[in-house]
Amino acid sequence: MENGELGKSFLKSYIQKTDGKIVSYFEKKIAEANQVGEIPAQNIAAYVETVRRGKRIRGSLITLGYKLAGGTEEEKIIDASIAIELFHAGVLVHDDIMDRDHIRRGLPTMHKQYEKSGEELEIKDAAHYGVSQAINLADAAYYMSWQTLLESGFSYEDIVNAGKIYADYVLRVVHGQVLDVANLAVRQTTEEKILNVLKYKAAEYTGVMPLLFGAALAGLNDKKVTDAVIRYGLAFGWAFQIQDDILGVFGEEEEFGKPIGNDVREGKNTLLTLYVQQHGTKEQREFLDHCMGNEKISREDVLKVREIMKDCGSYDHVFNLGWQYVEEGKSAVAEVTDNEEIQKILRSLIVYMMERVK
Amino acid sequence: MENGELGKSFLKSYIQKTDGKIVSYFEKKIAEANQVGEIPAQNIAAYVETVRRGKRIRGSLITLGYKLAGGTEEEKIIDASIAIELFHAGVLVHDDIMDRDHIRRGLPTMHKQYEKSGEELEIKDAAHYGVSQAINLADAAYYMSWQTLLESGFSYEDIVNAGKIYADYVLRVVHGQVLDVANLAVRQTTEEKILNVLKYKAAEYTGVMPLLFGAALAGLNDKKVTDAVIRYGLAFGWAFQIQDDILGVFGEEEEFGKPIGNDVREGKNTLLTLYVQQHGTKEQREFLDHCMGNEKISREDVLKVREIMKDCGSYDHVFNLGWQYVEEGKSAVAEVTDNEEIQKILRSLIVYMMERVK
Repeated sequence: MENGELGKSFLKSYIQKTDGKIVSYFEKKIAEANQVGEIPAQNIAAYVETVRRGKRIRGSLITLGYKLAGGTEEEKIIDASIAIELFHAGVLVHDDIMDRDHIRRGLPTMHKQYEKSGEELEIKDAAHYGVSQAINLADAAYYMSWQTLLESGFSYEDIVNAGKIYADYVLRVVHGQVLDVANLAVRQTTEEKILNVLKYKAAEYTGVMPLLFGAALAGLNDKKVTDAVIRYGLAFGWAFQIQDDILGVFGEEEEFGKPIGNDVREGKNTLLTLYVQQHGTKEQREFLDHCMGNEKISREDVLKVREIMKDCGSYDHVFNLGWQYVEEGKSAVAEVTDNEEIQKILRSLIVYMMERVK
Repeated sequence: MENGELGKSFLKSYIQKTDGKIVSYFEKKIAEANQVGEIPAQNIAAYVETVRRGKRIRGSLITLGYKLAGGTEEEKIIDASIAIELFHAGVLVHDDIMDRDHIRRGLPTMHKQYEKSGEELEIKDAAHYGVSQAINLADAAYYMSWQTLLESGFSYEDIVNAGKIYADYVLRVVHGQVLDVANLAVRQTTEEKILNVLKYKAAEYTGVMPLLFGAALAGLNDKKVTDAVIRYGLAFGWAFQIQDDILGVFGEEEEFGKPIGNDVREGKNTLLTLYVQQHGTKEQREFLDHCMGNEKISREDVLKVREIMKDCGSYDHVFNLGWQYVEEGKSAVAEVTDNEEIQKILRSLIVYMMERVK
């Protein structure tokens, strides 16, 4: 019976291998930006720490996808995998503007950081300045991400095939984000809508895309393996997202890097809130409703929301669902690869997705 | 002696060839977005008209770059060239958020269009909703742009090489935009800073990038030709940008698609405003200063700014500079290609850049 230890240490080892690379990558990029001007260079420099604090799950999956498809060039795939970390940190910058988030990965969000720079420059509307520069930053991050893939040194054909996967899935992520913004704004949703957002914005993108991206760079061209990778990846993405939603209510700020109960404060519809709305008592539903999207809720309110979710069965329901996905993902592993070492990592990593506290 | 007629009709013919393609491209993309949800599909649909109203200078330059490098697959290069029009319309959506523009290409800017959708959905903060969805739209446009290049059917090597050029130049565009936002905000600048912004944000991007992008898709690998293309493209980009700055003050709304004197109202630093600041009388400088970044200036104020620019020599200075770039570009044409037909188009198109009224 696998636990998440091997997955956790695999991820840790990926972080160690990429950390120095990310830092030296940005040194080069900051120098290039400096040729255009100081402020572009400063803005990129401010971003490095945020990128470094990423969990790097997607980047690590790229290396696994590559290896399960028979790839053997370790250094090259690690370099290429940074493409997805650049994109991911970038798209979160835009997300944070839309969600008006102030904290990300334990740091002020980029638009808040640039707002502060704007204040130092004595700019009249520093908030607008901060948002503008954060929009620019993510735009730059997207194109840095493409550069990283194009310059990765794999065969032209494999690069183009990986790029097609990357573009297709990101396009659906953005459509999912459009839906998410709309759902949040109208504060009225259904299970179908929630699942749709989560599918495109989270599960496919987090689990399937990076594995296929990495596999493409190893030239994977086997429909049976591809199907198994998609099955594993989708289950992985769901397990990841379910634990993310759980941590959005039950996570602790010092570990999770976001304020306690952040999802509730933002009014984010998740499977947890949906279950309360469908199965809670009138009182429970009303209290949750009062808290959803309410920026002024206290720590006590969050603790009470947790209690409600435990009492009405929402927590157990969602928690069990997450573990069902873990089992489903594990059941696909044998078809994904014959390599026992990679099988073990895949099985343990999906378990770790539900065990992680950050 | 060339005039701009041939260039103008070349551009018109490119627009005719691409118009139906853009419409059918978006029909497919709207159907795909609709699989995720109605709102993503609606948001993409709202964007089509804005893309169609583009001048398509950059797309047309891609086809010229391709032909001057010996490419012969007309249909394929036209399809691929749409990549840059998708990007360009997208980056303008982000620009318009930063500049708080309300009109673009004679239509409400995308964030204003989505703000209106938000009002119809009875969303509380419709302005924030509009900005959020416009951020998403451009993100989608970038990845649609990459898809278009990757699926263009050229050789994998040529696609990767074109992609590297595309990513490199766009990254500098974004750095230029960061500087532009900062310069605008601090309202204090120098000729060097203005030229730097214009170089990266406009001249290189508009002139050099699309020509090299197209040439890469024809496998161009000749340093002498590449150097000549860069020389022509840079001159082209400067001529384009100078006329753009002239139209930003002297253009008429019905033709230019932006409110009269838009650049002054936004406080945009250009070579025209810089010349007044350097060579105008105290009174002229003070009047311009009063108008710069002042949203409340009247039509009469704009007319007076025009008069000042004419009187103090700013208009003539900048206009002549534009024509110098035209001459410089024309002088590079013979080294760019031996094909006389393309030579004629290149010579006429750069003239048209300074003759155009929109």
